[in-house]
Amino acid sequence: CSSTTPITATMFPGDGIGPEIAESVKQVFTTAGVPINWEEHYVSTEIDPRTQSFLTWESLESVRRNKVGLKGPMATPIGKGHRSLNLTLRKELNLYANVRPCYSLPGYKTRYDDVNLITIRENTEGEYSGLEHQVVRGVVESLKIITRQASLRVAEYAFHYAKTHGRERVSAIHKANIMQKTDGLFLKCCREVAEKYPEITYEEVVIDNCCMMLVKNPALFDVLVMPNLYGDIISDLCAGLVGGLGLTPSCNIGEDGVALAEAVHGSAPDIAGKNLANPTALLLSGVMMLRHLKLNEQAEQIHSAIINTIAEGKYRTADLGGSSTTTDFTKAICDHL
Amino acid sequence: CSSTTPITATMFPGDGIGPEIAESVKQVFTTAGVPINWEEHYVSTEIDPRTQSFLTWESLESVRRNKVGLKGPMATPIGKGHRSLNLTLRKELNLYANVRPCYSLPGYKTRYDDVNLITIRENTEGEYSGLEHQVVRGVVESLKIITRQASLRVAEYAFHYAKTHGRERVSAIHKANIMQKTDGLFLKCCREVAEKYPEITYEEVVIDNCCMMLVKNPALFDVLVMPNLYGDIISDLCAGLVGGLGLTPSCNIGEDGVALAEAVHGSAPDIAGKNLANPTALLLSGVMMLRHLKLNEQAEQIHSAIINTIAEGKYRTADLGGSSTTTDFTKAICDHL
Ligand SMILES: CC(C)[C@H](C(=O)O)[C@@H](O)C(=O)O
Ligand SMILES: CC(C)[C@H](C(=O)O)[C@@H](O)C(=O)O
Repeated sequence: CSSTTPITATMFPGDGIGPEIAESVKQVFTTAGVPINWEEHYVSTEIDPRTQSFLTWESLESVRRNKVGLKGPMATPIGKGHRSLNLTLRKELNLYANVRPCYSLPGYKTRYDDVNLITIRENTEGEYSGLEHQVVRGVVESLKIITRQASLRVAEYAFHYAKTHGRERVSAIHKANIMQKTDGLFLKCCREVAEKYPEITYEEVVIDNCCMMLVKNPALFDVLVMPNLYGDIISDLCAGLVGGLGLTPSCNIGEDGVALAEAVHGSAPDIAGKNLANPTALLLSGVMMLRHLKLNEQAEQIHSAIINTIAEGKYRTADLGGSSTTTDFTKAICDHL
Repeated sequence: CSSTTPITATMFPGDGIGPEIAESVKQVFTTAGVPINWEEHYVSTEIDPRTQSFLTWESLESVRRNKVGLKGPMATPIGKGHRSLNLTLRKELNLYANVRPCYSLPGYKTRYDDVNLITIRENTEGEYSGLEHQVVRGVVESLKIITRQASLRVAEYAFHYAKTHGRERVSAIHKANIMQKTDGLFLKCCREVAEKYPEITYEEVVIDNCCMMLVKNPALFDVLVMPNLYGDIISDLCAGLVGGLGLTPSCNIGEDGVALAEAVHGSAPDIAGKNLANPTALLLSGVMMLRHLKLNEQAEQIHSAIINTIAEGKYRTADLGGSSTTTDFTKAICDHL
């Protein structure tokens, strides 16, 4: 129903429930008349029998070429070699900022009804360096790396985001009272960038205190920017405030103009293939992708259809206390379009 | 009113509101007839004019000799040399486990009413090594150190605590999917100890997921054991669930049989000296100290008096929405004894 030239976007359905929720996105997008052609690639912790590979060069090239993509869950097995596929994609595609908006969904009640914040996570370094070794038997160390370049880059992204999205405040989250050099450098970079944005209020909050404030009163925060591990922790905490990772979208931003939207929940192998998965996180990530592409009209339409379906409460998947299948829930969203 | 030989305990009132809340504890303990003589020492981020010192050798010796003490808040200024006094005490006194019970206070409503968990934090190593350096300009690193010895020690403490306190489950919190060597070693040690306690259920939870579960449903957890920084973060998060650090006690356990109970909230310089501080965290920490000394009867009496005073709601300090002074609130507790 749209006459614009279609945009090509990469789709990585991923592991477990990935293919089912990806199918849901494709259906909803088609129904909404989104002018997107999907270039689908198999990236998974299970070797693809056709390519004998977890991740082919063509899959990476697809995102690099299209500059936009949507990614489902990929399992990160504990203790099976360092790099997870998630981290490999971040690294290979130079995805330096992970943006996770977190807001109360009207119609889905949790203990909090006033959440509306954005976590922006440095996505390439910090505790995720992969540098670890045994010093002597029984003594191991891992390196946390913080660089001026990556800190400035993510701080710049956060302030620019705040400014262009009508946000008023950026809080840098840290533990510089303990890690004075690493987190100290991160803060120094945030302060430098803050000076270029006098219209945005800037503050610094120690991570432990931040977590306490978040559970007491999340309305105290607006945009939060932080090093990798703190971002991992706080974004999950925030997701918990509004119902969990099944409901929260995310988007990874790359140096080279790439945007890879992503559902950050697990691959849920226990319910995979059973038509029980909740596609909301991937759908809302798809909406972030549409906004990135400036397809704002379709983004809003799809967003409302999702919100309204959940709010109505007639079709909900099991994780939200309902008994709908993935396909029924998807159909209900399409009916709202 | 007690005829037992009095026990000598060290008291570090600390900075800011420290002296006022310490005074409250002394009054309540006296009223309850607790057989304790306090040996008070000045330890503060402000140099003591009498001794020209932040922390004298005698202060440390006092705890080492008495093996039991109570500590108020000590400020940790950001960016003024590495060691905070808090860390110095942990190090000098070999305080290897930090125990923070966290439970909903009957009568003080928060969004959660089902919290009853214990965080046990490794208190000596991990991200708190203090080892940091600049590699080249703009690139800094800090070392996280995990040792078999410290991990076994805190795991052993956690399982023993669970067993002797009628707890059923120990959850080890980690990020071993990323820090496979350091957090991996921590988990390995927990597993080893878990085997010696077949009656306690053992599980492992990734820190980001743990934070999400905690804010969604804290009743999922019982005893949590974890490396230093995760303990710092999660204990504050848990405190937030029940009203904040002003209401939660803690106790540090040392290798040499030392127990130093501690209010872990800040020194609140803005309200210091104004008779506005809430002494609850220090009082409840005092109760932990009494239990450690097996003065269970007085511990229960004082605990009930605090809980009942808060529940009654007539006398509450400003942080809990009331308008009582520290002395009024303290008097109300004494009246309940
Ligand atoms: C699966 C895991 C490696 C990953 C991370 O730690 O970054 C996940 O928790 C996330 O937040 O995307
Ligand atoms: C003040 C600070 C150094 C300390 C810590 O990080 O351990 C505090 O947050 C705590 O939890 O006792």
